[in-house]
Parts: sequence; structure tokens; C-alpha cells
Amino acid sequence: MDTSKYTTHVPLNSIKINDSFWAPFMERVRTQVIPYQWEALNDRIPGAEPSYAMRNFKLSAQRSHPELNYGVDNAAGHGGMVFQDSDFAKWIEAAAYSLAWYPDPALEKTLDEAIDIVCNAQQPDGYLDTYYILTGLEKRFTNLKDNHELYCFGHFVEGAVAYYEAAGKRKLLDAMIRYADCIDKHIGPEEGKLHGYPGHEIAELALVRLYNITGDEKHLKLAKYFIDQRGKQPLYFEEENKRNNNDFYWKDSFFQFQYYQAGKPVRDQHVAEGHAVRAVYLYSGMVDIARLTGDEALMQACDDLWNNIVNRQMYITGAIGQSAYGESFSYDYDLPNDTVYGETCASIGLAFFAKRLSAIAPKGVYADVLEKALFNGIISGMSLDGKSFFYVNPLEVIPEASQKDRTRRHVKIERQKWFACACCPPNLARIIASLGTYVHSVNADTLYTHLFLGSEARVKVGGRDVKIGIETKYPWEGHVGISFKLEDKAQFTYGIRIPAWCNKFTLVLNGGATNYTLKDGYALIHREWKSGDKLDLTLDMPVTFIEANPRVREDIGKTAVTRGPVVYCLEEADNGPGLFKLHAGDAKEPKVQYEKDFLEGVVTISFTGKKETDWQEDTLYRNAANTALEDKELRLIPYYAWANRKIGEMTVWVNK
Amino acid sequence: MDTSKYTTHVPLNSIKINDSFWAPFMERVRTQVIPYQWEALNDRIPGAEPSYAMRNFKLSAQRSHPELNYGVDNAAGHGGMVFQDSDFAKWIEAAAYSLAWYPDPALEKTLDEAIDIVCNAQQPDGYLDTYYILTGLEKRFTNLKDNHELYCFGHFVEGAVAYYEAAGKRKLLDAMIRYADCIDKHIGPEEGKLHGYPGHEIAELALVRLYNITGDEKHLKLAKYFIDQRGKQPLYFEEENKRNNNDFYWKDSFFQFQYYQAGKPVRDQHVAEGHAVRAVYLYSGMVDIARLTGDEALMQACDDLWNNIVNRQMYITGAIGQSAYGESFSYDYDLPNDTVYGETCASIGLAFFAKRLSAIAPKGVYADVLEKALFNGIISGMSLDGKSFFYVNPLEVIPEASQKDRTRRHVKIERQKWFACACCPPNLARIIASLGTYVHSVNADTLYTHLFLGSEARVKVGGRDVKIGIETKYPWEGHVGISFKLEDKAQFTYGIRIPAWCNKFTLVLNGGATNYTLKDGYALIHREWKSGDKLDLTLDMPVTFIEANPRVREDIGKTAVTRGPVVYCLEEADNGPGLFKLHAGDAKEPKVQYEKDFLEGVVTISFTGKKETDWQEDTLYRNAANTALEDKELRLIPYYAWANRKIGEMTVWVNK
Repeated sequence: MDTSKYTTHVPLNSIKINDSFWAPFMERVRTQVIPYQWEALNDRIPGAEPSYAMRNFKLSAQRSHPELNYGVDNAAGHGGMVFQDSDFAKWIEAAAYSLAWYPDPALEKTLDEAIDIVCNAQQPDGYLDTYYILTGLEKRFTNLKDNHELYCFGHFVEGAVAYYEAAGKRKLLDAMIRYADCIDKHIGPEEGKLHGYPGHEIAELALVRLYNITGDEKHLKLAKYFIDQRGKQPLYFEEENKRNNNDFYWKDSFFQFQYYQAGKPVRDQHVAEGHAVRAVYLYSGMVDIARLTGDEALMQACDDLWNNIVNRQMYITGAIGQSAYGESFSYDYDLPNDTVYGETCASIGLAFFAKRLSAIAPKGVYADVLEKALFNGIISGMSLDGKSFFYVNPLEVIPEASQKDRTRRHVKIERQKWFACACCPPNLARIIASLGTYVHSVNADTLYTHLFLGSEARVKVGGRDVKIGIETKYPWEGHVGISFKLEDKAQFTYGIRIPAWCNKFTLVLNGGATNYTLKDGYALIHREWKSGDKLDLTLDMPVTFIEANPRVREDIGKTAVTRGPVVYCLEEADNGPGLFKLHAGDAKEPKVQYEKDFLEGVVTISFTGKKETDWQEDTLYRNAANTALEDKELRLIPYYAWANRKIGEMTVWVNK
Repeated sequence: MDTSKYTTHVPLNSIKINDSFWAPFMERVRTQVIPYQWEALNDRIPGAEPSYAMRNFKLSAQRSHPELNYGVDNAAGHGGMVFQDSDFAKWIEAAAYSLAWYPDPALEKTLDEAIDIVCNAQQPDGYLDTYYILTGLEKRFTNLKDNHELYCFGHFVEGAVAYYEAAGKRKLLDAMIRYADCIDKHIGPEEGKLHGYPGHEIAELALVRLYNITGDEKHLKLAKYFIDQRGKQPLYFEEENKRNNNDFYWKDSFFQFQYYQAGKPVRDQHVAEGHAVRAVYLYSGMVDIARLTGDEALMQACDDLWNNIVNRQMYITGAIGQSAYGESFSYDYDLPNDTVYGETCASIGLAFFAKRLSAIAPKGVYADVLEKALFNGIISGMSLDGKSFFYVNPLEVIPEASQKDRTRRHVKIERQKWFACACCPPNLARIIASLGTYVHSVNADTLYTHLFLGSEARVKVGGRDVKIGIETKYPWEGHVGISFKLEDKAQFTYGIRIPAWCNKFTLVLNGGATNYTLKDGYALIHREWKSGDKLDLTLDMPVTFIEANPRVREDIGKTAVTRGPVVYCLEEADNGPGLFKLHAGDAKEPKVQYEKDFLEGVVTISFTGKKETDWQEDTLYRNAANTALEDKELRLIPYYAWANRKIGEMTVWVNK
């Protein structure tokens, strides 16, 4: 692998987002999501199931330190899921990113106090998982497959790294280094250690983030061990099952141990399988290890898995995980719109995967998919007021079906306040709050811009400090203004992504023509840059009708409407019931309109389509000669904004 | 209700079927299904799960009569399902019908010996359910909701009646009369009795059949009580739950007690709900009671339920029960072709319902639906060699989906030899063997012909004996020749069904014109009939493209190909994989060909359709402007004959 082109993404503390589209989302995360989640973690939401997350830490701390009293009854037991600790870890990660964007001393104080509690729960040998601390430490590390110990650890590491990077405070980071030491003592290749790995992946990528800070080879080695050991014979999960005298739920399913991506060595995995969130977390860790070790076989697996997802198993919204059973990938070209799982977290994990691949090879396809997921299948997970969430992101909803068809029970018709398994809301918070890190990356001689977010960033290219600003009304308008500030002139390449959806664009430098070469989805301009340089990218952004590969049974004869990176949908609120009766028709001259006061400000699309004429007869079948279509005005809204009005049908794909 | 027009179907012993289409099916039932099932009931099928059905009777008999020894270890327990007795009961019913058609002394001897065993198992008070006899009689009648006691009783009565009618032997019939007495002592409106009814219906219609023979009001009264009491408050099943300190599986489903059609009084039920087989068995019993009691409110419910099924919830094949969850009806216009349950038994039950409605009002729609079910969704349940069976009858199959999509696990891609819950094979046997009773019915002055089956029947119309013969190559050809033989001339009305699918027909009497009036789907000819009269009905039978009501989301933009009563399908064996990519196109001049040596002799349909052109690109989405269709020769076979070659895709509905 040629590692000389590897790029590094600009970290959060070097960029300030002020984007007209995304800043309001970040503000909602800051003012709604993070405070609400803190209340939830502390069991202070009236009417909601208690989380027990903070109580578990307090109780663990009290038991370890009899002098402490957080007001929890010492006789209480562990509460919530076996992975409840991770809810806190994800929250602290999101809060840390938010602090990096918007300093908030009160929030920082809350974090510090919470970290004190958490650290007081840590055991003398570094162990820190309240489930086993409270239910019996003798059983720790005995059920890596199901009990999410290493998953909680991974999220904890991510939270600790994020807070260290945001606030410069090491307390939680040091605690996690001690916890990593503890895990390293119990799990690894050496004789006497458990030859195991996480049942739910994330520790792999988290340990690499830790290694980036500590530079301690031990952290890299443990991450690599989790990757290398996974799926090797004899299968650790099978051995563990034998020891525990139990079995696994997925035995009776077609994916078997591939539910955990553990049915074969990861380098032999070329098709995305099993639980989608686990999968993309693993693949992200695999890319990290491939990048750091130059492992060609591992890189090949990552490329194949990426291509399989993007070209065979991904919805047009960037949703992944077609099947509710196992919240899993299913099989190539199986993309049902109505029974899809499409977990918010899975699309977020896909963004992680894309970002990491882009660091190895800055190809536009990675940011194209990242952007597709961000503007569609990710933010659809949150209501426009930041107060409720989708776990599942369907592309077609019929409320009656969700109520009466058992196979669509998971397809909710309105966003929920909170979940027993509360992974999606904090995951949304952490990706939205950390969006700044996805905008630019640099290597020795090139500065790349991947996402068009209004922002000011400080980067170092070829040893020079460069300030790069973006001004845009993207995604509603196609103009992206880039400005440069430098102390001195500097020779370097600037690459700006030209999205694959865009067939026509102009690139203007300081008001005039410029030379660029198009490569792998980027317009590359090599020149001597100086302060005050202004680059204007204007992307042609027409309404576009998309069709799916005819191998996709569910989309045959249908079309989806997009404009720029935004996928549109029809809602019953605008188009009446029976959306499946509608046809796009010729859709000549669709009307594109920015509506400032509608759905927090969106561009809507309207055109004259068709509708199957209702029958006079109250019968089910008749001679097909009588088919009739009538004109019907259709109005589409951005997919992410659906379900922010009254309950009703929704569809992304409409008959041609 | 005007009861003067009620008709009586011609019984099996008055008709001899020699139909070119159906006689081979009956022969398969006689030579394959009935012998195979007898072996199965006696646990003599190598490699198959034992049935235990006969063993349960033998064991019960041995325990009741210590002098008996059938070679069963007395220490053995009850085997198989709680309703295992019903498998024997359904088998004896089918065998009895077959004997009526084709005398077989060896089979009759087998039946008599089996009946001896069964009667030896009967308890002194008439009780006869081996599950409770073998597990504890003190618990009998304590779980009417789940334990199928009255269901087994109902099937037993049907079997006993059938054998009595076929062979004139009363032994089993008398045993069932004693069993009915026993039930009557325990269940009924009187104080001290249980105010219950069957969890799985069938006893209602069975008791009416018993009443037809015995004339004993007690039998009618019990049937009527089961109908009247069902769903009344306080709900018996709820009371029973309380007594047993248990609950019901469907509590967490949208149908609640309507799974059992017991959530409200039956006269308040106007939409088909819950378990489909139970539903149509109940509705059949309801029609019987409405007919015998002239109950208008009950009749209205029956009409509404029929209309709801036929106009809102029935597949074009006559399959019903859209949902695998609960093997149930779902909701109006919800007709998924790929996840359908469409149990063979449910379509058979629909035939029972249709036949009974037709007895009250001879409207063509009843026989139209009956015929639709018979030629399509019922016989699709059996392989052409009579050796394997479908429980579920899908209208679209993709083998990979059945293997990998959990929600299609029930959709088998090949017929099975036998089932743990073996209801469909004997149900198929009993309807095919008793087809003769569906052909004609009579009332005081009219003889109706509902089905076009080659046959000779003796009927009494207006006090006169009439022999009516049918000669036809239906459904492959549209000509139906009717011949009459009478001792003397007789004035009566003859009504022959003109199927709703037929837009053009000719009716020729003795080679010349005839006067007829069309009424409710029948051509009625009132005249003086004489021996030797010949009537020639010729139904125009073009290939017809059907479309579904646009409220049916799953069939939008699709068409189904039919010819006469036969629904056609495409199989991968003829059309290659990816059937969902095919379009019917204009389909000018479809080729219709009888192929004698193909699939036991079928008419196939071929025409030039279209196919979505495969993409060069290995991507999922592209600009819709590039759509392309190419010509493709399509070949269709009758739906019922699918899955008799190699495993592959199948679809009934194809894109227009």
C-alpha cells in the first residue's frame, strides 16, 4: 500500500462551523439533545423508564469506596441493559464535541463531576463495567459474545478521547488507559489469556483513537489483535458457548456467526453480513488497522465490503441494514422500502467507515456516500425540534401496516422520545456535534475539502498555516465560496469535491478562469496560493429523477426524486392518502421553492404527476383494459424532514 | 328470510365424477394421498416424525379395556399435537368420500378396523379425546380456547357422517352421537354448564351435518349455542384464562380475541379477522344456522363477512389469510404476494363457506369464488404426483428470499412430504374426494349446475327423477355439454352458471336456439324437459389480463394472466431468473396451447413481453432517463402446477 498519500482530517478544535444548514442542528443537539439525555441518564424524565446509567456508576463507586455517598441505596442492583454504561460514554463523547464547538462552563462542570463518579467506580486493576462490578466480578470476560463489556469499553475510550481533545483534561483518558491495561492483561494472543474479541465491535476503532493520542504500541496491538483474531478457528464464541454451556440466538438463522461478523476471518469477508451497526463499526476499525499497518489483504477486504454495501445493499438515503431480524444486512439487491430496518446508528457507522477510507484514498465516492447519509438517512433519525428520534428509517410508511402487520412493527410512524436501548439519540448527537472533522483533510502537499459546510478552519499544508473559509447555502443552493488566508504565499494543491450527483459545475478563481484537473471526484488546483484568494464552485442542482438497478425488485418501475444531495419524499399531509397510487409521470418543469417558514426552512419540489383513478366498483379484480390515470399535483419535501407534521403515509420511491 | 328458494346440494352417492381434469386428482387422492396418510397416521413413514395418531387411540383403548392389546406399551404417553386425533378424523372423512366414488373393500376394511380401535378408546360417558384420556380426564373441558377438544370433536363428526353416508355404517356415527351427548352435558346455556365454545371452530358446521342425519334438535341447539355464545360478555375465554391463571398469545397483537373470532358477538362481526381457517369454518357454521333458523342478523353478518373477504381480502387465486403472523386475515386491500400465508386449508374453508351461501341464495358469485379457489389456491397445495404438499400458497416466490428473509420463512420453495401440523394434506383429500357434492343443487322447482365437471348425477326436481350428465374438457376448453334423462317429461327450471369471468357465451338447446333469462350469474331455462335433451354451453375463453383495484398497493402497475377460471404464473424454469424484471407489454395475440405431456396436461400461454435491460454498471442508482426495455418471450403455466419442476422463482403478477 502506498501510504504517502494518506490524509488526516482536520480536528474539531481547528474548525468552527457556522453553516446555515448544520449549525441549527448542532444548536439543537447542544440545547435539546445533550441536556435531555443527561436528565435521562439520571432517571429524571417523568414517565420514562429509568436509564439507571448514572445510578449504576454511583452504586459501583459507593461499594468500592465506603466513604462515598451519592444517595443511592447500597442494596440496589444493576439497572437497565447489560450495556447501559455505553449510554453515558456516548453522551460524554457528544457533550465533548459540543463543548469544542460551543464552550459551556456549566456543561463542562457537569462532565467533570460525572467523570469523578465514574472514576470512583473504577476497580483497583482498572476494570470499569458496572454490570459486572454490581453483579459479580468473578464472571467478567466470560461472555464477550453477548455481554457488551468490550463495547462499553470502546465507547468509553471514544468519550475519553473526545473530552481530552475538547477540554485537555486527562482524568477519564487516564482511567481508560488503565482499563485498557486491564483488558490487555486478560485478552490477547499470549498463553493464559483469553483469545477473544468483542461481541459488538467498536473497541477496535476506539483503541486506534487512543493509540493516536498515547502512541503506546500496546493500544494498537490490542486493536489489531481484535481484528486478526476475529472469526479464526477454533472460533472463540463457540468455545465460550461450550464453557458457558449455552448457545447463540442466531444459530437458527442463515447468518450464523456472521451475525457478529465472526463466522470467518475478517480478511475473508467480502460481503457485508449480520448486524449492520456492528459490521460498519468493525469495518471502520479494519480500515484503521490497514492504514496503520499497510496490510493489503485487510485493505482489500475493506474495499470489497465498502463496494458491496454501496453498490448492492445501500438505500438511496444512505440507510443500511435491510432486515429487522438481527437489525442486519440481508443480501445483494434486497432493498425493501417498507420493512427496512435502516437504523440511524448504522448510517452513522457508515459515515465512520467512509471517513476512514477517505483518509487512505481521497476518492469522492466516500464523501458522496457520507454526504448522502448525513443529509438523508442520518438526520431523518431526529425530529426538527431535536426532541424525538427514529431508530428505524423506512423509505415507505403506511400507518395501518405498522399497526397491523407484524413484520412492520419496527417501522414506527412517529419519532419516539427515548428508547430502552438508547443508542441512536446519543449517536446522532455525537456525529452532528463532530461534523467539523469531516470537512477537510490534508496530507503533505494537498488540502482536500469533502463537505460544503459554512466554516472557518486552520490547517497546515506543506508546513504552512492556511486558513480556509467556506460560505454556502448548501444544500439548498449550489454555490460554495472558498476563501484562503495565509501569512505568506504557498505552493500546494487544493482539492474540492465535485459530487457524483452533479453533471455540470463551474469553478471560478478570483473572478476568472482556473486550471484544474478532475481526479477521483475532486477538482485539483495546483498553484501558489495567497491570502485573499477566492474560489467559487457552483454546482448545477436540478431536480433529478433516479431509478434503481433493475435487480432491485422493490424499486422496479419506480423513481426517486433528488436535488443535490437531498433525497425527497411524498407525505400524506401534502398528497393525500394512497401514495402508492401516484405516478411521477412526465413531471415537466418541476417547481423548486425555498420555503423559509416550512419545516425549519426547506426547498420543496412540486410538479404535475399522475394518480391511478379510484374504481367505482367495490371489487378487487377486473379486466386490465380499463386502466386510467388522472393528473395530480405532487409536492415533495426533503426525506429527512418527514414525520414532523401529523401521522400519515410517506414514500421515497414513486411509480414512474 | 325467504327460505323457499333454499337449495340442497346433490349428495355424493347420487353423482359419479368422470371429469377429464378432476378425476385424475381424485385418483391421486385415492391411490397416493389416502394410503400415504394411513401409513403416516400409523408411524410407518421412514424418516418422518411419528404422527402418534393411531397409537394414541390404541393406547387409550388398551387403558380402558385391559383385555385389549394393540401392541402399544401401556407406559407410553400421548404423542403429537394436542389435536392429533383430528388427523385421523380428517383422514377417515376423505377415505369415506373416496369410497363413495370408488368402492374399495380393502380400504373399507381398514376403516372398520380403525373405527373399532377408536370406539374402544371412547369413555363410558361418550368422551373421546385421547389427549385428555391419556393425560388426565379431570382436566377435560378446562381449556376450550387452546386445546382443540371441540375441534377434534367437529372433525370426528364430519368423518363419522361421511362414512355413514358412504357406507351406511353407523358405528362411528353412534359413537359421535354419544360424544355429542357428553359435550352437551358439560357445555351449554344451562346453569352448572360451561358457557363456552370452541377455540378452533368447526364443531358448529359439523353438528349441523349431524343434525341433518339425526334430526335431533339437541345437535342443532348445541351448534346454535356455540354460534350465539361466541364473543358474548363476559368473555368465556377471559374467564377461562382467569381460572387457569394463564393468558393468551394474541394479547399483544392487534386482533386480540378476534384471533379466535371471539372478541365480539358473531352478529357484530362484519370484517373477516383473525386466524383464517378458524374464521371460514365459523362463517360456514353461521350460514348453516342462519339457514336453519331464518336468523336475519346472522345472515347479514355472513353476507358482510363474505363480501369483505371476496372484495377486500382475497387473492386472485382464491387464497385467503394474508399474514403468516397468526395465519390470519390482516386488513382490507393488504394483499402482499410474497409474504402471504394463503393456507391451503383456508381456501378449502372458503369453499365450504361459498357452498353454504349458495344453498341459501344460488348466486353465481359463490360458485365463481369456489371455482377460483378450486382451480388455483386449493390444488396448488398438492404436487402433481399427489406426494407432497404446500401449507402456504404464495403468489410470488424468490428462493433466496425464502432462505434469507425471516419474514418469508413460511414461504416454502418446494412442497413438503408431511407436516407436524398435518391439516392441509387430509383437507385437500377430503375436498377433492367430495367434489361431486359441489356440482349441482336443487330446490322445489329448479336444478342448478354450479361447476362444470364431467359427471352423471341423479336428482329429484319437482318430484321427478332426473338424470343429468355433463361432458366437458373444462377448464382447457369452454364447451360444456349437458344431457338430460327423464322417465317422463317434466316442467322445471334448469339453471346453469355463466361465470363472471366470461363475457361471451352461447347456449344451444338440442342444436337450436333457446330462451333463457340471466339472473344472478345463472342462465335459467324454464321449460318442459324430456329425455334426450341436450344443452350446449360454450364459454368464450380468451387469455385475459387482469388488474387489481388500485387500493392494493402490492399489485399497482401489474397484471395477472388468466384464461377461464385458471390463473397463470411465470416460473423461472420457463422465463429465467429475475421475474420481477418482466413486463407483459402489449402481449398481442398470445399463443394458447394444450400440452398433453407437460405437467400432466395443461394449456400454456405464450407471448412476447418485455424485460428491463440489465445495467452495465455495477451500481444501485442512476438517472432515470436511461430506462430501457427489451423484448422477451414469456411462457406461462397454470398457477396450480407451479413448483413441479426444479426450484426457482415464480410470480402470478407481472409488470404491465
